[in-house]
Amino acid sequence: MEDPLGEHYIIELYDCNSDVLNDYRKIEDTLLESARIAGATIIDQRFHQFNPHGVSGVVVIAESHLSIHTWPEHGYAALDLFTCSHDMNIDRALDLLKTTFEPADMEVRLIRRGVTNKHLRRLQQPHLEPVAV
Amino acid sequence: MEDPLGEHYIIELYDCNSDVLNDYRKIEDTLLESARIAGATIIDQRFHQFNPHGVSGVVVIAESHLSIHTWPEHGYAALDLFTCSHDMNIDRALDLLKTTFEPADMEVRLIRRGVTNKHLRRLQQPHLEPVAV
Repeated sequence: MEDPLGEHYIIELYDCNSDVLNDYRKIEDTLLESARIAGATIIDQRFHQFNPHGVSGVVVIAESHLSIHTWPEHGYAALDLFTCSHDMNIDRALDLLKTTFEPADMEVRLIRRGVTNKHLRRLQQPHLEPVAV
Repeated sequence: MEDPLGEHYIIELYDCNSDVLNDYRKIEDTLLESARIAGATIIDQRFHQFNPHGVSGVVVIAESHLSIHTWPEHGYAALDLFTCSHDMNIDRALDLLKTTFEPADMEVRLIRRGVTNKHLRRLQQPHLEPVAV
C-alpha cells in the first residue's frame, strides 16, 4: 500500500498531573523537546495561558505540527502530532509526554491523512488505528 | 451522553485548485475568515510558505485551533478544526473551504476528544464519524 502524505497521531491524556496541565512553561518546553527528540525541525511556536486555567499551544515543524490543549480542571490534555515524515521517532516523543504529564490513562491513535490514490481511498474507509504505548 | 470536551473535525480536501494550495495569502485569509464565520475568537496565527511549494498554517482560537497543510503537487490539503465550543457554525466554515479550494473530493470526519467519563470511554471506542458536506 502506498504511503499516505501525512501521519496524524491523536493523543488523549487522561487523569494527568493537574499542576503540569496549567504550567505554561513546562508545557512549552515539553512540546518543543518532544518535537526535537522525534527528529522534527522546529519552525515556529505559539503558546497561550488561559484564565482561569488551561494552556493551548502549537509548534509548527517542517514536517507539519504538534498541538496541545489542556483542561486542568478535568485532568485532561489533547495532543496532536501530525507529520509528513515517515521516519520520525514517535515513541520517544510519546515517552516524554507520558513522563511529563503522568496520565493514568493514555490513548494514542493514528489517522492516515492524504490518501491520494482515489481507488485506495474508496477501498479503505479512514479509521483510528490504535497505537500501543 | 455527556458532551466530550472537544470536537475535532478532520477535513481532507482532494483534487483542489493547485494554485490556491500554494497561495500563502489566500490560505491565511481563508483560514482566518473560516474561524470568524464559525464564531471562533482568534488569538494568534502562524503561516509558512515552503520551498519549492506548500503552505502550513495554524490559527490559535480561544476554542482551540485550526490548522492547514497543503501539498500543491498532489492537489491535497489537510485541515483540522478543533473546538471546545459545542455551538460553532462549522457548516459555514466548511462551505468557505469548499468554495476556496474547489476540491473534487472532500471528506470531513469528527472525532470526539476528551471523554472524561471513564466508563463511557470504555464503552465507546473512539471513531471517525462521517460529517455530510
